[in-house]
Amino acid sequence: MTFDEAKKAVNLHLKKESVGTEEIALLEAHDRVLAEDVTSALDIPPFNRSTVDGYAVKAEDTFGAEENQPVKLKVRGVVNVGEPPKISIAKGEAAEIVTGAPVPEGADAIVMVEDTERDNTELQVYSAVTNGGNTMKKGGDIKKGEIILKAGQVLGSREIGVLAALGMAKVKVHMVPCVAVLSTGAEVTEPGKELPFGKIYDINAYSLSTAVLESGGKPVYLGVIPDDKAELRKALEHAVACADMVITSGGVSVGPRDLTPQIVDSLGEPGLIVCGIAVKPGKPTTVAWIGRKPVFSLPGHPTSALLMFHLLVRPVIQVLSGRPVEEAAKAEAVAGSKMFSAKGRRTFVMVKLKRDKSNRLVAEPVETGASGAITTLAKADGFVEIPENQQFIDADEKVNVALFKDA
Amino acid sequence: MTFDEAKKAVNLHLKKESVGTEEIALLEAHDRVLAEDVTSALDIPPFNRSTVDGYAVKAEDTFGAEENQPVKLKVRGVVNVGEPPKISIAKGEAAEIVTGAPVPEGADAIVMVEDTERDNTELQVYSAVTNGGNTMKKGGDIKKGEIILKAGQVLGSREIGVLAALGMAKVKVHMVPCVAVLSTGAEVTEPGKELPFGKIYDINAYSLSTAVLESGGKPVYLGVIPDDKAELRKALEHAVACADMVITSGGVSVGPRDLTPQIVDSLGEPGLIVCGIAVKPGKPTTVAWIGRKPVFSLPGHPTSALLMFHLLVRPVIQVLSGRPVEEAAKAEAVAGSKMFSAKGRRTFVMVKLKRDKSNRLVAEPVETGASGAITTLAKADGFVEIPENQQFIDADEKVNVALFKDA
Repeated sequence: MTFDEAKKAVNLHLKKESVGTEEIALLEAHDRVLAEDVTSALDIPPFNRSTVDGYAVKAEDTFGAEENQPVKLKVRGVVNVGEPPKISIAKGEAAEIVTGAPVPEGADAIVMVEDTERDNTELQVYSAVTNGGNTMKKGGDIKKGEIILKAGQVLGSREIGVLAALGMAKVKVHMVPCVAVLSTGAEVTEPGKELPFGKIYDINAYSLSTAVLESGGKPVYLGVIPDDKAELRKALEHAVACADMVITSGGVSVGPRDLTPQIVDSLGEPGLIVCGIAVKPGKPTTVAWIGRKPVFSLPGHPTSALLMFHLLVRPVIQVLSGRPVEEAAKAEAVAGSKMFSAKGRRTFVMVKLKRDKSNRLVAEPVETGASGAITTLAKADGFVEIPENQQFIDADEKVNVALFKDA
Repeated sequence: MTFDEAKKAVNLHLKKESVGTEEIALLEAHDRVLAEDVTSALDIPPFNRSTVDGYAVKAEDTFGAEENQPVKLKVRGVVNVGEPPKISIAKGEAAEIVTGAPVPEGADAIVMVEDTERDNTELQVYSAVTNGGNTMKKGGDIKKGEIILKAGQVLGSREIGVLAALGMAKVKVHMVPCVAVLSTGAEVTEPGKELPFGKIYDINAYSLSTAVLESGGKPVYLGVIPDDKAELRKALEHAVACADMVITSGGVSVGPRDLTPQIVDSLGEPGLIVCGIAVKPGKPTTVAWIGRKPVFSLPGHPTSALLMFHLLVRPVIQVLSGRPVEEAAKAEAVAGSKMFSAKGRRTFVMVKLKRDKSNRLVAEPVETGASGAITTLAKADGFVEIPENQQFIDADEKVNVALFKDA
């Protein structure tokens, strides 16, 4: 199966909706996704509001006022910010007012304090002001009933500020999909435990759990499953039951111990939909759908597993969490050396980015073979894609690097 | 005080160290910052390891083997992955082995299964292999004692994978600074409560709490503090006591009710270090240091408050959390219209980004006056800076937009 066919099979089985919605406290809503359009339940500002410090007046009283021909008004009192005005303004009158306070009844404009002189209750106004001048009408910023934010919006500091302005202490968002993550393979042991001879520590359940978080999902770490058919079946049944999707890694190369795809296929319909992909690396990747739940079985090699996660799994997590499906961040660079493709397979070359002497961003291939699994993982900033029908990318050719980070 | 002087004053008082360190579970360490260099406590791989499926042999036994002149070896048994080998290899012998399994004693190379033919215990080897061929030596990826990650590294999926590989279930990271966030002003009410006439809902404690999260801090939401000297003092004392730093907003323009800076100044030494900045907007911003704790008092206007947060507060949170101080993400655009600066003040023009017909990214100024506080907040993608000595930026001039998002 080609890479494009595998992507198509996944998209065919993926229901284009999130795992659900919930109402949560606005202060907890950072980086969550709006589940519905938000309509303002109030006019903002909720009252005619002064936009300067000065005096509330009838505009027509100030007509003709000039530097050497002031208009005289009588100050009736003060309008405080944050309370209903206690006074109203009649012809020839004014009220002291500050920015943000409600314009008192009878007044229709504010004269700026710089344009006045005051002696006790006597006010000299040196400049005319038009009707509505230095005020903002009720609803002038946002009208009651106006749609302010759209469903699907990811909530950051500005959006949460806007929702607060509308008086919303709660907000309806998409639920975060739970993603069970487990590792298989007789040779892997959980970090923190003693390392028996012949074993290595598990990497993938940790790197993939973190990648799930970075993609908007909630990882459910299930650790290393013993290499035993009954145990593996039990663990996979539990994973499918307790989470919205499952990621396994390891145990999918061709060998007598590679039970995962077989067992996954037997857990429900439709079962396996992708059984190996013509890519390098990542060939043994399988994908199954058990009812509505996707199960991805990724390779054991840590960098290959992370690569296949980014290519296939991340977009699914984004859909299940109601997020816009976003491509990985890309960097434009030049190939640091010739990159060869694997015949007939979509090839992904892991690269490290660095600046050369002339400050060009250079994508230097990082070996991804059996050797140096951890140093490869530590070094690879991203990957370059070579299509099936292309034999190589030449040194110094322009390349687009899809980045693992910020993704 | 100029903007640069204000920045300098802040940097002078800021101790260049995090608020502390703690050991946490590796699975919880996503987006945390390493507090110390990490040295590998083990060789990786921890044993000589086969990198292919095939047969463990003495390399010299295969010398001269060719397609039409195979070498005959006797298969002694199987070496399983994940366990100590139960057999050792003598001259003329071989053991079946899979990728990842330990090379058995006596063997020094692996012949790939594709280069062999087997009949029961009789193995024909059709290709010679050199000493060490298809194996990875103990420590060949990482040597015990090698420094693998450096202090200050922010932990993402790859770094957490690398730490797991070293067997670390825990990791020492910088603590997350607690940032108390409170709003002042007689006119603001907390979202979720009823809105009395003359009041508006608080925006800043929400947008700034979220911005704190986005910068690597932990917000401590203290809500809206009543506009009363005693209450305000109590709230500020509590904020300074319970958090590592404090952000207030509102109540810092010139007026009888603007008590915050006065009270903050009285809370401890050295007190106020910045009292207003020659910037537009954000002029009434003040900064104090109470003992080791910074207190930022930002303007009440939501967009101005968020702007000053990005310019002054965010870098401080980054230092206190042990993070590299990172500039806001920038976008290159052209000015959508002429942008004027305020005389003698560093000016920041809020802009919305859009593409024009010829697909150029255009920075369109967004009004930030008293009018449209919320629509401004919703629309502004970032800001363009105009230096004090520059009068304007012309339409179509190239501009660098500092982005509010991803920051």
